[in-house]
Amino acid sequence: MRIAVDAMGGDHAPQAIVEGAILAAREYPKIEVILVGDKFRISALLNHVEKLPKSISIQHASEVIEMGESPLLGLRKKKDSSIAVAVQLVKEGRADAVVSAGNTGAVVTATKLKLRFLEGIERPAIGTVFRHNKGVSLLLDAGANIDCIPRHLFEFAIMGSDYAKEILGYPKPRVGLLSIGEEASKGNELTKEVFSMLEKTNLNFIGNVEGRDLLTGAADVIICDGFVGNVVLKVGESVAVYFKELMKKEFTSNPIRKLGALLLTGAFRSIARKADYAEYGGAPLIGVRGTCIICHGRSNPKAIKNAIRVASEVVSHHVNQHIVESIKANGHALARPPKSVS
Amino acid sequence: MRIAVDAMGGDHAPQAIVEGAILAAREYPKIEVILVGDKFRISALLNHVEKLPKSISIQHASEVIEMGESPLLGLRKKKDSSIAVAVQLVKEGRADAVVSAGNTGAVVTATKLKLRFLEGIERPAIGTVFRHNKGVSLLLDAGANIDCIPRHLFEFAIMGSDYAKEILGYPKPRVGLLSIGEEASKGNELTKEVFSMLEKTNLNFIGNVEGRDLLTGAADVIICDGFVGNVVLKVGESVAVYFKELMKKEFTSNPIRKLGALLLTGAFRSIARKADYAEYGGAPLIGVRGTCIICHGRSNPKAIKNAIRVASEVVSHHVNQHIVESIKANGHALARPPKSVS
Repeated sequence: MRIAVDAMGGDHAPQAIVEGAILAAREYPKIEVILVGDKFRISALLNHVEKLPKSISIQHASEVIEMGESPLLGLRKKKDSSIAVAVQLVKEGRADAVVSAGNTGAVVTATKLKLRFLEGIERPAIGTVFRHNKGVSLLLDAGANIDCIPRHLFEFAIMGSDYAKEILGYPKPRVGLLSIGEEASKGNELTKEVFSMLEKTNLNFIGNVEGRDLLTGAADVIICDGFVGNVVLKVGESVAVYFKELMKKEFTSNPIRKLGALLLTGAFRSIARKADYAEYGGAPLIGVRGTCIICHGRSNPKAIKNAIRVASEVVSHHVNQHIVESIKANGHALARPPKSVS
Repeated sequence: MRIAVDAMGGDHAPQAIVEGAILAAREYPKIEVILVGDKFRISALLNHVEKLPKSISIQHASEVIEMGESPLLGLRKKKDSSIAVAVQLVKEGRADAVVSAGNTGAVVTATKLKLRFLEGIERPAIGTVFRHNKGVSLLLDAGANIDCIPRHLFEFAIMGSDYAKEILGYPKPRVGLLSIGEEASKGNELTKEVFSMLEKTNLNFIGNVEGRDLLTGAADVIICDGFVGNVVLKVGESVAVYFKELMKKEFTSNPIRKLGALLLTGAFRSIARKADYAEYGGAPLIGVRGTCIICHGRSNPKAIKNAIRVASEVVSHHVNQHIVESIKANGHALARPPKSVS
C-alpha cells in the first residue's frame, strides 16, 4: 500500500506533514509513505529523525500551490506543484492514494482532472465525518458541488452509504436527506425529488432529517448539496467557537470562577477531545478513480497520520468498487416515472 | 396601540400567554392587549389577578388550531380559531398587530391570506433575531419561502434592512448575503444573481458572508432562502444543545468537577441569559399589510411580553411604510441588464 502525501500543503507544512508521515509509517508497517514536495526541505526534516522507517520515501516536486491561490490557474501554471505530482503518482499507478492538507480547491480539481470519475458518477463529493453523542456521521457533499440536480444527491447517497459501511463500520448505514421537516412533502424542489429517488434504492434510506438532528445521531450518512453542506459545517463550527469564547470570558472573570474552571480542567480536556477533528483523518473526495483524502489546512501530525490510515482503508476495502456496483444496482431509481418501457 | 394576542397558541397556552399579556399591559401603558381565545378559560385566568390593567380585553374565539395540525386544513375547518380571529382583528382595523406562539404555518398562512402583501412584495419572510458577541443580527428568511428566485432574496434584503434600522437600532444596517465564500464569484446560481442585484441598491450591502461569520457580528442582516435559513437556525440550535449536554455530563462526573461547576454557577447563568431567545420577542413576519410577530411554541411570559413590545414598535416606527418606499427606491436593481430601454 503506497500513499502519496503532499508534504507542502497545510498551515504547518512541511513540518507537521512530515511528522505525521513518520507517525503513520511507524504505526502501520504495511503502508509506504511517499512524501511529495521540495526534496531539500523534506530531507532536512527527515535527517533529524532517529530510526527513520524505511517505508518513507521522497518524490521531488519543485513548486507549491499556495492556500489562497486560484486552483485552476495554480494547476495550470505550476505543473510541478506538490499537489499535481502527488495526484500524478496515483494516476500512473505508482501510488494507491493521495493525502493533502493543501489548497482544497486545487486538490479537488487536480484529482478530478487527472483521475477522472468512477463509472456512473457525474459528481464526486467531499465527505466530512463529524462526531455526535452517539458516534460519528458522514455528511456529503461538504462543498465540492454547489449547484446540484437530483441525480447528484442520489450519487452522494450511494457513495456515502458505501463509505460509511466500509470505513465507519456501519453494517447498514442509515441515510438521511437534510431537509426542513420529516415528512416527504417537506423540503425544496431538489430534496423532494431526491426523496422519491432514494425511496426506490436498496439503501437504508430513513427519509428527511432536519438541522436539529445533525448532532443527535439520527442518521449515519447525511445528504445535501455542497452549498448547504458548506454553510452547515461552517455554522456548526462557528457556534462551537462562539460558546468556547463565551465560556472562556465568563470562566475567568473573577477568582472564584477561575478556581471553578481549574477544577474542571479534566472535563474541558475531555470535551476538547470529543470535538477533535484530527481523530477522523480528513475528508474523502469520493467518486474519483482513485483515493484522495483532503485534510484541514491546520492539520497537526496526528491528523495527517489518521488521514494516511483512512486512505489505506479506503483502498483495502475497495470502496470505489462497491460504489460502482451500488450505482449499477440502483440505476432504476433514476428512471423518471413517465418513461414506462425501458 | 392595540395588539391582538393569540391566547391559545403555544406549549404553555393560555397560562403563559395571559401572564405575558399582563406583564406587557403593566409595563407599556400605551398598549391595549386583546387576548383572543376561549373567553371562559381566559377569564378564569384573569379573575385571579390583582389590579388587572384595564388595557386588557378579551375577544372570544371558540376553536384552536393545534401545533401539529395542517395549517391550510386547520384554517379552512376552524373559521373561529384564535389565530384566524386574531388576524381578522388586524384586517378589520380593530387591532394594529397580531402576536402568536401557535402553529407557525397557520399564523403565516392566515396572515398572508387575510392581510395580503405590501406593495412591491411578492414574498413575505420570517426574520429571526439572534445574539452574537457584538450584539444582535437578523436572519431572513427563516423558513417561510423554501424555493426562491433572486427577486425574493432582494426583497428579504430590503425588508431586513428597514426592520434592522427601525427595530434593532442600526442606523445603516450592514446587509450580508449568506454564501460559501467572500468573493462575488462564490456561491450558487441564486446567490450570485442576488449579489449583483444587491450591489445596485442603496442598501449598505457588504457582500457575501459565510456560515462561520454568523456569530461574529460580520453583518447586521443576513439574507438567505428559507430552506437554508431553516437548516442554519436548527443546526445552530443543535450544536448549542449538544455542547450543553456534553458539559452537563462532564461537569457532574465526579465530586471535584461538581464543586468546580458549583463555583461557576454565576457564569452559567450569564451564558444562559445571553442565549435566551425570550429577550428578542419573537420572529416578525415581514412583508404583509399589517404586523405579525411569531413566537416560539415554548414561549414563556417574558417572551410574550417582549413580542408585544416589538409588535408595537414595528407599528409605531412605520416599518411597513419604509419598506414600500425602499422597494420603490431600489426597483432599478431588479431590471435585467439585457433590457436596455425601459
